[in-house]
Formats: sequence, C-alpha cells, structure tokens
Amino acid sequence: MVISKNMENLVANSSVIRRLFEEGVELAAVVGKENVYDYSLGNPSVAPPEAVKKAVYHILESRDPNFVHGYMNNSGYEEVRDAVAASLNRRFATDFVRDNIIMTVGAAGGLNCILRALLDPGDEVICFAPFFGEYRSYVSNFAGTLVMIPADTETFQLNLDVLDGYITEKTKALIINNPNNPSGAVYSAQTLDRLQAIIEKAQERIGHPVYVISDEPYRELVYDGLTVPFMTKHVKNCIVCYSFSKSLSLPGERIGYLAIPGQIDAYDEVQPAIVVANRCLGYVNAPSLFQLVIGECIDAEVDVETYDRNRILLYNSLTEMGFQCVKPQGAFYLFVKSPVADENEFVEAAKKHNLIIVSAKSFGCPGYVRLAYCVSYDMIQRSIPAFKALAQEYFG
Amino acid sequence: MVISKNMENLVANSSVIRRLFEEGVELAAVVGKENVYDYSLGNPSVAPPEAVKKAVYHILESRDPNFVHGYMNNSGYEEVRDAVAASLNRRFATDFVRDNIIMTVGAAGGLNCILRALLDPGDEVICFAPFFGEYRSYVSNFAGTLVMIPADTETFQLNLDVLDGYITEKTKALIINNPNNPSGAVYSAQTLDRLQAIIEKAQERIGHPVYVISDEPYRELVYDGLTVPFMTKHVKNCIVCYSFSKSLSLPGERIGYLAIPGQIDAYDEVQPAIVVANRCLGYVNAPSLFQLVIGECIDAEVDVETYDRNRILLYNSLTEMGFQCVKPQGAFYLFVKSPVADENEFVEAAKKHNLIIVSAKSFGCPGYVRLAYCVSYDMIQRSIPAFKALAQEYFG
Repeated sequence: MVISKNMENLVANSSVIRRLFEEGVELAAVVGKENVYDYSLGNPSVAPPEAVKKAVYHILESRDPNFVHGYMNNSGYEEVRDAVAASLNRRFATDFVRDNIIMTVGAAGGLNCILRALLDPGDEVICFAPFFGEYRSYVSNFAGTLVMIPADTETFQLNLDVLDGYITEKTKALIINNPNNPSGAVYSAQTLDRLQAIIEKAQERIGHPVYVISDEPYRELVYDGLTVPFMTKHVKNCIVCYSFSKSLSLPGERIGYLAIPGQIDAYDEVQPAIVVANRCLGYVNAPSLFQLVIGECIDAEVDVETYDRNRILLYNSLTEMGFQCVKPQGAFYLFVKSPVADENEFVEAAKKHNLIIVSAKSFGCPGYVRLAYCVSYDMIQRSIPAFKALAQEYFG
Repeated sequence: MVISKNMENLVANSSVIRRLFEEGVELAAVVGKENVYDYSLGNPSVAPPEAVKKAVYHILESRDPNFVHGYMNNSGYEEVRDAVAASLNRRFATDFVRDNIIMTVGAAGGLNCILRALLDPGDEVICFAPFFGEYRSYVSNFAGTLVMIPADTETFQLNLDVLDGYITEKTKALIINNPNNPSGAVYSAQTLDRLQAIIEKAQERIGHPVYVISDEPYRELVYDGLTVPFMTKHVKNCIVCYSFSKSLSLPGERIGYLAIPGQIDAYDEVQPAIVVANRCLGYVNAPSLFQLVIGECIDAEVDVETYDRNRILLYNSLTEMGFQCVKPQGAFYLFVKSPVADENEFVEAAKKHNLIIVSAKSFGCPGYVRLAYCVSYDMIQRSIPAFKALAQEYFG
C-alpha cells in the first residue's frame, strides 16, 4: 500500500457505504425511484429560508466584491463574529465577545480544528455511544485514539455511571452531540451538571483539563416544546461546535462556528491554537460569502414543523406496528431496535421491501438501526405499507 | 501546555506575523493609511470577473435550492468535475475524466487531502527553497517531516543537481509551486523533464512511488507571452492542486480542485484515499454554490494586464535604484536580494520608510525579501520615493 496506514480502514469503510448507496441506485433503476424509501441520509429536505437568497443578493449588490470574496482574519469577518456572539448572548444569556467566536467550515471543520489544536499522537478522546461515526476519522487524523463508552440503552442519556473509569492521563477531550445523532436524545440540564461534577473531579486526579466538545448542528431541531440546555452554562471546559447545515439547510456550503468561552482552562493558549489550526489545516477561513450571509440571517427561523410532522408520523406508525423506537426529542433521526440480534439481517430484510435504513454499528450501537426522517412527508406515507409488511415478518 | 506539542511552534510563528500586521495598523494610525505601502499580503486587488456574479444569480434563479446548497458526492458535483476536466483537456490536450477531478476547499485544502492520504508519521516531503512557508504546517498536521533543498539562487529553477541525495525510503512526496511564490520563477519544460528522470531513477532505488504535488494557484498569472508547462505532461506521478483564489480573485470562497491523472502509480488506491480524506478532514466537500459558479465560469478570463503593469513598474524602478531583483515570470511577487546579509535589518529599515515587506526566511531563503505587487498601481507609484530613500541608505 502506498497510502497512509491509518487511512486503509477508512477507505474500506467508505467503500462499504458507497456500495450501499449504489445498491439503492440499482434498486431505483429496477423498481422506480418513487418506490424506493431511502431513510439513509441526513441531507435536509426543507428548503433554506428565503432570507438566505435575499442576503446573497443584498451582499453582492451593496458591498465591494474584493471584500465579499477576499481573505479576512482566519477567525472570520469581525462583523459576523460580533453578530454570532450577540445572537448567542440574546438567546442564551451568555457573555460571548468577538474573540470567542471562530467561523469554521461547518461543524466538521470546527471539530477538526479543536482536535488539531489539542491532540498529540496517542492522546485519547472519549465518546458516548451511540455517536456520529465520523468522530473516529477526525480523531484518527491526528493519530489520537477514540475511546467509546457503551450506550445506556435504557435512557439514551450519557452513560455517566462509568465515565470516571474511562478518563485517564491521556484523555484530552470528550465529544458530545446534543441533540444526538443517531438516537434523537437531548441531554438534560441534570445530566450535564452531573457530567461537569465528574469531569471536575477527574481533572484533579489527572492534573490537566478535559475539554468537552459539544457538537450541536441539531440545536434548533427539538420538539414538544423542549429546549436544549446551553452547554457552556453547565460545563466549564466546554467548546461549542455549530453548523448551519441543518438549521438553515446549507450543508453543502460548509458554514459554522466555534464558541470558545473565556471560562475554559488555558483559554489564552487554546483559542489562538484553534485559530492557527483553522489556517494550517487548509480551511484558511470559512467560506467568505456565506459568512456574510450568516451575519444577515443569524436569527432566521428554522422550519421545525416539517420535521416534527415527519417524526410523529414515523414514530407513531412504527411503534404501533410493534417496533421498539427511541422517541426522538431532537434532530431528525429515529433510532429503532432491531427485532433480531444482528441488525444487518434486519437492514437486509428491510431492503427487500425497498426500505433503505442504516445499521447503527458504525455509531457504536449494534442491534439498532437509524432512520433519517429529513425526507418528504409523502415518502413516509408511501412507505408505511412496506414497514407493515416488514413488521409482519417479525411480529406476525 | 495543554495544546499539541507540534502546535506550539506554529502558534509562536503565527503571533510573529500577527505582530507585523498590527505594527502596520499602528503605523497607519500614525502616518495615515495612504502613506503606508503594504507589500506583505497575497490578497488579489483585481476584482472577480463579472461572470462570477452573473453565475451566482443564474444559479440561484434557475436551480433547486436544496441542490445548490446541499450535500453532493464528497468529490464534488459531477457536472462541475466534467466541466473542469473538459476545460483542462481543451487547454492542455490532456485526457482527464470526471473521476480524475476532485473539488476542494482551495489548493490548501487539496494539499492537505493528499498529505492526509499519503503520510504516516515520520514520512518525508521534499520542498525546493524558496517555498510557501505554509507547506511546513500542512506536513506537520500529519506528523510528517518537511525536507528542504536549498535554493539555486543563480537561476531560481529547481535545484536538481542535489535532489537525488535528498530522496530516501521515507520520501513520500515532493511539493512544487509553479509559478513560484515567492520567487516568481516559472519552471521550464526542460527542468520538469529532468525532474522526471531523477525521480524515476530514485523510485527504482527506494522501491516505491514519489508523488510530485504541483501547487498551481498562479498558473494563469504569467507574463511576457510565457506559458506554464502542464505538469502531468512532464512528470508521471504528478497530482495537480489548483485554486481559483488568484485567477478569479476568490480567495475567501475556498474553491479549487485536484487533478489526479490516471497515469500515476497506484491510482486506484490513491484516488479513493484522497476522496475519503476530503470528507474525514472535515471539508466534506468544496463549498457547493461556488462549485456551481466554477462550472459556469471555468473559462472566465483573468485580468493579467493589471498585475503585469504593476510588475513592470516595480521591477524596473527597483532595479534602476540598484536593488537586485529576480525578474518575475509569473505569480505576483517580486523577490529582492537584501542589500545587507541580515534581511530582517532590511525589513526594519524599509519600515522606517513606511514600506511593509516580508523576510523570505520563512520561505527557506534568508537574505531575500518578498514584495507582493497584487496592490493598486497607484500605491506602487506613491511608494517609489520611499524606495528611493531606502536605496540611498545602501547604494548612496
């Protein structure tokens, strides 16, 4: 092999996913695209708010093109960072200032900046299952080790009872995804306060900070009147990663930010290192036009209703049929227990009914599958008979 | 320190640059912005072609917003990759197909994808001085070692006489920047053919491929009727990194591509690894709207004339005054020999005349300074008396 050793696995896994995708395409060619019910991808189906297009036009008409498309500080335009800080402060009663905000190439870019800034080879990063499988790749980019804490499949809250035993001198960070992909769980204020207490004690034991990286692309996508507790209010050494991919339906534009509160340990060391990481990882800066768009759309409303209708239809239908589902409080995923021990068998059985669903093994939670319901309501309705036929195979 | 060990130096260097920038701002506050002649930054002064704005409007008016702003294949939109391949084939008589083209977050993003795909810790990457200092950071991201070959200060072509001695079993790649930042040199077809011969022989000796990464953001910025030889025509294991930052004046938008010709060794291993690297480094994909813009503007003309006028004025003026300058054949930098051994002394002396120029030490070429002439013609004209006064100090 001429490629990097730790790349070989990533490439192999990636071709598995590609094969799944290709199977879906082949299936569509046989039975017709409208008869394939694809629940595999987290690509928003809701259109971006009209404000986005208006902002693009307004910016292109009113500002100097070399400003709009040019380099700026690696952290982002000052006016945009001010707007993000002000919006957070207004909504969450925080006290962010410009320097606390770094515009990034989505949340994935932000996560990589933090890990680049913190990790030496062999350092450990803890994740609670189930978790977004890409965290594995991000940690491996810098020769770190991802340490997984098994899921609490009773509550799908953080499995805090065992956390302390996983924190070692090599632990540099912990990644939390709130609301969670793939479970749809939202961590309660109580859970987060307990997390803080455990980390505080562990930090004394190991003698250095453990940063909590809060990956929050689904922050606005919550249901039943719930709100997501704002992480930095509960966890001292918390850095927030945000993306507008889901909330403004702009995943392709790669636009997000980091909020690094002044309260974190060694702020004066960590903040500049993250800015440098943004440059030296080749992002250089978040895409310029869409930074300015965010500045103008920071308080644009998200269409949560559409996802909520999908959620209710899918959750109610599947539980009625006998499937055991985690009731999603946020994000746009339904987490379903496989009716057979090997969830791959279940995924294959579903495919026979033209249902494309994803094994949760790569999320660190075998025995479960994930359904992304960021699809059209119509597709969900049309897929109900297929789910019924699938249910019949297991529950009679 | 809580941050990564190999980050400490990068942060320290970065704060030196920031201090320089801040000094410039302070100077402007004292003497007035119009009296500071800032030659430090490679930020294009020419506006993007009108076609860019037209393309944005056309795309937003005619296409589905979820397509325009959504995820696509990690390699980029198929139609855009087709357009890039066709344009290269038309201009350079190459035979690229869609799979050879990967849209990236600028050339910096593309470079990082290649290095992520190829490097194991301790692997070596060779650069010929003078070279863009950021290559150091890119190689260090993946715990590689940058090996520098000293400049040939006679010709500023590649220092090929000594190359073979630098290629070891640890050598994975070699980075070339053509036209070169900071020297403005363009490597001739003859130089590149000789490079190929040396690498071919060395590969036999070490038993594995050495990939030549050709970083070409300045490809279109050449003067005096010169053309840049197309790298893959001369070097077999060459991967081309391109960016529209300079040619379309879009540095902030982070849009570029990789061209990976089918002829390279282990193509079937390297190409997929680079696509996966694009995803797992958190770029995920190049910004979507600007991919589509590139698809519509792929043959937009670059305003080379403006830079050429600047080049002639600055080069002629400075050589007349007695400064020893490398005559730039491409890019938008003038490389000047410091009239004193310590170029930092020269940089400081220039600052006293409100001239902001950059030491070439970080480019691996101490004793020289770099002037970025991607500024207004007017600023160059106004700065001539300052250069004259500076020249007087050295040449009387």
